[in-house]
Order: sequence, then C-alpha cells, then structure tokens
Amino acid sequence: MPQTPHAPAPSPSSSPVSILGLGMMGGALAAAFLNTGHPVTVWNRSASKTGPLVAQGALPATTAAEAVAASPLVVLCLLTNDNVNELLAGLSEKQLAGRTLVNLTNGTPAQARALAARAEKLGARYLDGGIMAVPQMIGGPAAYVFYSGDEQAYETHRPTLAALGGTKWTGSDAGLAALNDLGLLTGMYGMFIGVVQALALVRTENIKAEEYAELLVPWITAMLGLVPEIARDLDSGQHLTDVSSLAVNQAAFPNFLTAFKEQGVSVELFEPFQALLDRSVEAGHAADGLSRLAEMLTVR
Amino acid sequence: MPQTPHAPAPSPSSSPVSILGLGMMGGALAAAFLNTGHPVTVWNRSASKTGPLVAQGALPATTAAEAVAASPLVVLCLLTNDNVNELLAGLSEKQLAGRTLVNLTNGTPAQARALAARAEKLGARYLDGGIMAVPQMIGGPAAYVFYSGDEQAYETHRPTLAALGGTKWTGSDAGLAALNDLGLLTGMYGMFIGVVQALALVRTENIKAEEYAELLVPWITAMLGLVPEIARDLDSGQHLTDVSSLAVNQAAFPNFLTAFKEQGVSVELFEPFQALLDRSVEAGHAADGLSRLAEMLTVR
Repeated sequence: MPQTPHAPAPSPSSSPVSILGLGMMGGALAAAFLNTGHPVTVWNRSASKTGPLVAQGALPATTAAEAVAASPLVVLCLLTNDNVNELLAGLSEKQLAGRTLVNLTNGTPAQARALAARAEKLGARYLDGGIMAVPQMIGGPAAYVFYSGDEQAYETHRPTLAALGGTKWTGSDAGLAALNDLGLLTGMYGMFIGVVQALALVRTENIKAEEYAELLVPWITAMLGLVPEIARDLDSGQHLTDVSSLAVNQAAFPNFLTAFKEQGVSVELFEPFQALLDRSVEAGHAADGLSRLAEMLTVR
Repeated sequence: MPQTPHAPAPSPSSSPVSILGLGMMGGALAAAFLNTGHPVTVWNRSASKTGPLVAQGALPATTAAEAVAASPLVVLCLLTNDNVNELLAGLSEKQLAGRTLVNLTNGTPAQARALAARAEKLGARYLDGGIMAVPQMIGGPAAYVFYSGDEQAYETHRPTLAALGGTKWTGSDAGLAALNDLGLLTGMYGMFIGVVQALALVRTENIKAEEYAELLVPWITAMLGLVPEIARDLDSGQHLTDVSSLAVNQAAFPNFLTAFKEQGVSVELFEPFQALLDRSVEAGHAADGLSRLAEMLTVR
C-alpha cells in the first residue's frame, strides 16, 4: 500500500514504553512517560507496586516477558546489576530480538559493557544510562540522564527518553554513561564528606549547623572555582600551583586532625587524606598542586 | 589636659602595625597594611625576607622584641603554633603589656585558648584570627578573616584589620575563630577529595578532566543546595529524608568501590565512608538522612 505523501511522523508521545522495576526511581520514570502521553506497560517482581501507576493509566504486565513484548523500548530500573542479569537469563532471543533495552539500573562501566555484549547476542539493542536526579526531579528541568551504547537506538528513542529530563550522549562504549554518572556522584560524596565533618566539628562548640551552612555553602562554592584549573593541570601533566602546594597542605593538615581529636570528632574520614599527602610529598611532588593527587590515586 | 571638642578621630590609616613572620601569607598581610597607608614594621626569623617589604616602605626590625615595641597592634603569622609559643617565651611582660596580639598563625581552638591565657598573663590583649583567603586574595573583596578573643581589642583595631579583607567576629572564646576557619577548610578539603577522586576515575577512560569539570562543578554546586536542609535536620535531631536514606546510600556505595577497583583507581579515600554508612545502618539509622553521619562522627 502506497504511503500517503507528507503523512505526519508518528508523534513521539505515541511510542509505547515498558518499565521493568518500580522502586522509587522506576515509579518516577513510569509516571514521567505517562505524563507525556506515552502508552506505558509496567512490571515489578512484587506486583503490588503496579497499582498506583495502573490508576494513572499504565498497563500491568504479569510477567517480565509480557512487559518486554508490549513495547519496542524497554526500560530496566532494577535494584542491582545482578537483578538485570537474572532478568535477561529468563528471556529468549525470540523475545528480545529487535527490542531496545535501556538499562538505568545502577552499575559499573564493566558491568554495562558485559550487559551490552549479552543483550546484543540476544538480538537486542542496548543503551546504558546514568540518571543525574533523585526521583522527585524526574521529568523536571534540572534532571538529566547520561546515555551510552547503541547510538542508532539512542537517536531513534531520544524523543521518548526526553520525557525523563535532559539527554546527554557520552559515546558508543556502553560503559561511559556509568562512568560519567559515578564520577559526578563521587564528587558529590566528597563534598558531603566534607560537610558532615565540618558540621560535626563546629557543633562541638554549640554553633548552629543552619547558621554555619550560610558560611559553608558560599565558601565551598567559591573554592569550586579552583576546579577548572586543577583539571587543566591534570590534563597537561604540569601540576603547577601558585595557590597551595602539596607541601603546604601536608604541613597544615595535622592541625585538622589534632583539632578533630581535641574536639571529640572522629578522624576516620580524613586520616587517609593525610596519608595520601605524605605519600605524594615523599614521592617528590612537594611543589605540585592538588591535581597531582588524582594521578597518585591512579594505580595502573 | 582637656580634650579639644570635636577633634577628628585619628585616621585608621595612621595606626602603626607590626608583622612578625613573612612567609607567603605574612608578606601579603604586610603589603596590605602598607597599601592602606599604615606605618608597618616587619620582622622575620631569616632577615632576607624583609627586603621586598622595606622597598615598599616597611621598617625592618632586627629582633622580635623591637618589632613588638614598634606598634600597639602586633600581628603574628608564623608557621606553627610552636613557633608562636617560642616567640612568646622570648618576650617579657614589660615588652608585651598593653599591646594587642593578633595571632593569624594556623592552629586549633585549644591552642588558641592556651595562647590567649598566656598572652593575658603577660599583660597583652589577645585576638585569634582565621584567614579565609589565599595570599593573593588578601586586601581584595573576597577575602575575610574570622576573629575571636578580646572583644574590646577587636573593636579598637577593626578599622586597621579591615585592610586585610572582611572582618567576622565569632565570639569572646578565643578558640572560635580557629574553629570556624577549620570548619570551612574541612568542607573544602572534602570537596577536593571528591573532585580528585572523580577526575582520577573518568581519566581512566581518557575523558579530558577540563571537559569533565564543566559537568562536575555545576553538579556539586547543585548538590550544595541540599546542605541547608541537612544542617536543619542536624540542629533539630530529626534526621528525616525524602531524598536518600542511609540505607539507600549504603546499598549504592559498593558500586563506587567496585568501579574504582575495576578502573584501577585507589579506594583509600572512600573506603572509610562505606564503613561509616555500614556502622550507621547497624546502629539503627537506616531510614535517616546524611545529617545523622555528623552525629555518628561525634565521639563524645
């Protein structure tokens, strides 16, 4: 049958999506697809979690295979990488062939690469994703998701995936989305380590944490201004500094550990940093800046 | 003798200041006082460092006692707290009586309190200070200094001290300036720990650090938005969260350690955080937010 010329392209919002895994995050993903008009099929290991989404218009699947069969785009948001492997073990090439799997389950780059190889053997297209948002932010302007893997599948489904938030392509190596995701969260955890340690310290003298946060947040924000220079020094391999050398940091840091101990605050999170500074200076990097530490942490 | 009514107050810029200790920071302090028109006397253990400041108009003192005698306001910026104690050991009550000592040497709150007691016994007024700036920032709009100790001395000399940057009074307990200073730097070090770990991670896949910094800095800045809520939860003792519980963080964190190991990045800076999460969940705080960690770190 000849196609009508100039027939409108199918509206992205008409593309069906299946979501497997309805924890806090999976539920938010399903809701975001529903909110943008997509037909959504949902499945969860314990069926009780499908209720609220069915009330919003989702179709419940009774098995994972049924959910996979319902849509060309299949989003996985399970608890662990092992859960994803178990799920794939229960599905055949016939069930998966031609589907695009978008795995948004937390995992490592190596795990993502292994899943990509496995999915491709089963005839599926594989995209790995790293979500830069908490569930409450999904579908909002600040949320975004890193993607990597099958670029053609990404281009095909990008309009649909945009329902979740911004889309950032990181490359055809399936491990890159997880790598980018873990890197940002690593930076965030470091910041939180500093914040909880700082608040523990000042509260020993009955300073209100909320008042202190008004000093702490602008200060850390200002110090983030040094990060681009640290990054450039790392790229260049010239670990120069005119701000503070590792020797100066090494000399200053015992003050911190002494103050924590005097005030009755554990040094468990900060003692390893002193050891790293000591090791870096002993290795001949006394005059280098903080960028050298990233190299010292790289063990191969 | 009766005072002339309405005699102009002595211009702040006419107040003489002595600076003892001319490292990178001490030299910057002396230059800032010179730049605002103060008569400045300088002394350093090794006399060679006085040269550039004398060229800018400073008067060199040949002994610490001579420097102390030269000005009512005496700023100490030595390498360590031990150096301050050694300096005081060489000065008599006669030399110190009536002087105001402003100690900007790095130290702990307990060390500041001990110095305050010692200085007061020798008839001096004592102010402790914590400088929130690198030397290049001194005298500029972004620099500020925490002060604590003798409030009257602070009020008297505040116009002079303003030559260095903003002044923030933290209380008459001499330890509070160091506490506030160390707290902010602790937060900063945590952030840098996260940044160097994150850059080490992504560079294992040849991602340019400078490009990654363009994602990392806005992300950490956004996550700093959660700090005021963490601080409020800590103050209230209600460690509630609707974003991410300690149990969720505990479950997610092994992913990070696995990814670091797979990519050949040392886990030395991050392993203690997993141990703290484990300990907190074991202690019954699985449903709490990150604010609980500040309490877990407080050992007395």
